[in-house]
Amino acid sequence: MSNNGRIIVLGGDGFCGWPTALHLSNAGYDVTIVDNLSRRKIDIELGAESLTPIATIDTRLDTWEEISGKRIDFRYFNIAEEYRNLVDLFAEIEPQAIIHFAEQRAAPYSMKTPSHKRYTVDNNINGTHNVLCAIVETGLDIHLVHLGTMGVYGYGTAGMAIPEGYLGVKVEVEGQEIPIDIPYPPHPGSIYHMTKTLDALLFYYYNKNDGLRITDLHQGVVWGTNTEETRLHPALINRFDYESDYGTVLNRFLMQAAIGHPLTVYGTGGQTRAFINIQDTVRCIKLAVENAPMRGERVKIFNQATETHRVRGLAELIAGLTGAEIRYYVDPRNESLENELVVRNDQFLALGLNPITLSEGLLTEVIEVAARYKDRARSAVIPPASSWRADIPLDKEGSSAPVAVEHVLQVAGGR
Amino acid sequence: MSNNGRIIVLGGDGFCGWPTALHLSNAGYDVTIVDNLSRRKIDIELGAESLTPIATIDTRLDTWEEISGKRIDFRYFNIAEEYRNLVDLFAEIEPQAIIHFAEQRAAPYSMKTPSHKRYTVDNNINGTHNVLCAIVETGLDIHLVHLGTMGVYGYGTAGMAIPEGYLGVKVEVEGQEIPIDIPYPPHPGSIYHMTKTLDALLFYYYNKNDGLRITDLHQGVVWGTNTEETRLHPALINRFDYESDYGTVLNRFLMQAAIGHPLTVYGTGGQTRAFINIQDTVRCIKLAVENAPMRGERVKIFNQATETHRVRGLAELIAGLTGAEIRYYVDPRNESLENELVVRNDQFLALGLNPITLSEGLLTEVIEVAARYKDRARSAVIPPASSWRADIPLDKEGSSAPVAVEHVLQVAGGR
Repeated sequence: MSNNGRIIVLGGDGFCGWPTALHLSNAGYDVTIVDNLSRRKIDIELGAESLTPIATIDTRLDTWEEISGKRIDFRYFNIAEEYRNLVDLFAEIEPQAIIHFAEQRAAPYSMKTPSHKRYTVDNNINGTHNVLCAIVETGLDIHLVHLGTMGVYGYGTAGMAIPEGYLGVKVEVEGQEIPIDIPYPPHPGSIYHMTKTLDALLFYYYNKNDGLRITDLHQGVVWGTNTEETRLHPALINRFDYESDYGTVLNRFLMQAAIGHPLTVYGTGGQTRAFINIQDTVRCIKLAVENAPMRGERVKIFNQATETHRVRGLAELIAGLTGAEIRYYVDPRNESLENELVVRNDQFLALGLNPITLSEGLLTEVIEVAARYKDRARSAVIPPASSWRADIPLDKEGSSAPVAVEHVLQVAGGR
Repeated sequence: MSNNGRIIVLGGDGFCGWPTALHLSNAGYDVTIVDNLSRRKIDIELGAESLTPIATIDTRLDTWEEISGKRIDFRYFNIAEEYRNLVDLFAEIEPQAIIHFAEQRAAPYSMKTPSHKRYTVDNNINGTHNVLCAIVETGLDIHLVHLGTMGVYGYGTAGMAIPEGYLGVKVEVEGQEIPIDIPYPPHPGSIYHMTKTLDALLFYYYNKNDGLRITDLHQGVVWGTNTEETRLHPALINRFDYESDYGTVLNRFLMQAAIGHPLTVYGTGGQTRAFINIQDTVRCIKLAVENAPMRGERVKIFNQATETHRVRGLAELIAGLTGAEIRYYVDPRNESLENELVVRNDQFLALGLNPITLSEGLLTEVIEVAARYKDRARSAVIPPASSWRADIPLDKEGSSAPVAVEHVLQVAGGR
């Protein structure tokens, strides 16, 4: 018996799921991972492995048991397709919480082709709906914690700090201005982000109709690789994606600098994004589990992000640290080239989160990961390989071409 | 060659789809129906046929050709599963517009079991997404007209007239109140309604990212059976659903009165709903096709409803016409027992819609349909057979039991 409760981590072999499973196991929870290893299969499709040499799931779990004395259980199935397995598992384990990472999570991948668009919608919506439907079918009072994204808000909110999920507005009714609190109007920027806005409506409905207790974490762009637990043994190392589809912007820059590739900035790099270190991700998830909404409470939404930066600023920071060159590409995405972004994250701060800042953690990443494993990188998978727009075709090698920054501004025009 | 353009009607064998296909064909459009006949297959599952004796799709189309000299083409496939068929069809026909009725459209059916919930989500979301994705893949400038529902708004807006899709609100930014126009916050009351709120986000995204021209019709509860075209020959007759899952409230009451079954009112019958006659539905769809949004315009939303009534008021109206008794049932749905509802429908009125009112059309329905075909009804499928709430179990025969109205109020409590 453990001190704490039982937790199921859906997608527990992935970039956020694996360190979360370890962190919760380390904290005394009985953890069961469900994963169909789809992310490893996509590595094969893209011809690009994790920069870090990750162990098989079996080796990971055996190693963790040797080191910690704790066994994490593993079930191999597809939650979007094998509904009965979910119901049976929930009934068997009666978990206190389910952490749901089991979605296709890369915006560029979701935009590659009609097949990728359709896979992302089908997989993410049916997977999330199956989880909700199965919780209701079992009749158990399980807290669902879902990894969402800051991207559901869009990035066009000049001057307004983005609130945590709900927005206070005034509506005119019969000449009177009535204050109401509404879910923040969603503004998705890709098929992937769109699926997260659909998820939010699934949560809204199941919370209202069936009283499910749900926390939705609107996470910023994750950077960093390892956590306290994944550092304990080489076979526990976390994955690090550096190619253009799954690699998050900071991790891509770090690796590009390490192998001497120019940093790939899209457009002017004036896009401001919210960031969080992977160590803070796993801490936030534990905080979310331990501060569950009450029965009858609306969906609880946290902004899981700790600082904001312009992409250009990040590139300059890393160029300064490493001497890397910066190269500008026509932005293959439909997005504002320059935006402001202010994000409220009061709730996690109030629960005691003490964030790791870029200025503290960046050098560790450069030494521990990017420099150490740079020989594993394939430079062919670095340039942008997915386009949002029919008018920005990719070149013969399937990538968007680099251009002078003046040209970027000219092509992008008023978008 | 026809005078007008080519139109594809997805779900063109159904209750709204069939009279729409005939109306557009009659107006000179070249119509192609796509349908997998799922609604007829659900009749078999539920053991309840249309009260009216509908002909097979082949007989329908042959009859229409004999009468009108116009051929409606028919393709049998499942749009949620057979994506390539959609792309090939769009490329072959290059339609001016696609009218999309091809969704599971009954709220009670969507609530029956986990399988029905999952089917409704999977079918409706993948079907709608496939249509959008296929339009983008073909690169054609096709206007998509989708049949949505008033139910996406919810029914809790005391005092406020429901606008057509968009709501003007004021947001406070740095001490200033800024007016903004947002999509009306969705408030779905069943799994079926939830899928329509998901559809709205698919439309929002594809309109914004890919510039698709889309009209979403937020339709009220349809009543009535036949239209000018379906009355032309017995083999063209439209379907009339009277059982508790697919029958809309007014049609159910009409048939119940005809066979001497008490009218089945849920709760106090104080729920106010918006209604539209099937003849006005087909007129509205033609108006929507002929008043398409411009390229670059946001999703165009019409409220497709012409009058509002309380369910109790409808029951009293029909009881007055026919002498039927009224019987109250514990409401199996999660909904307010009493609500006000005011709906804006200025846009269709401005385009010249001259609505058929209940007071004009009701007697025709009683004589033409309910009384004429009453011998085809099976009374076993009349009581409510799907529950929204675990605390309102159905009885051994799978139906919710009738009760005194005082008891309804007591059970429902503060809900």
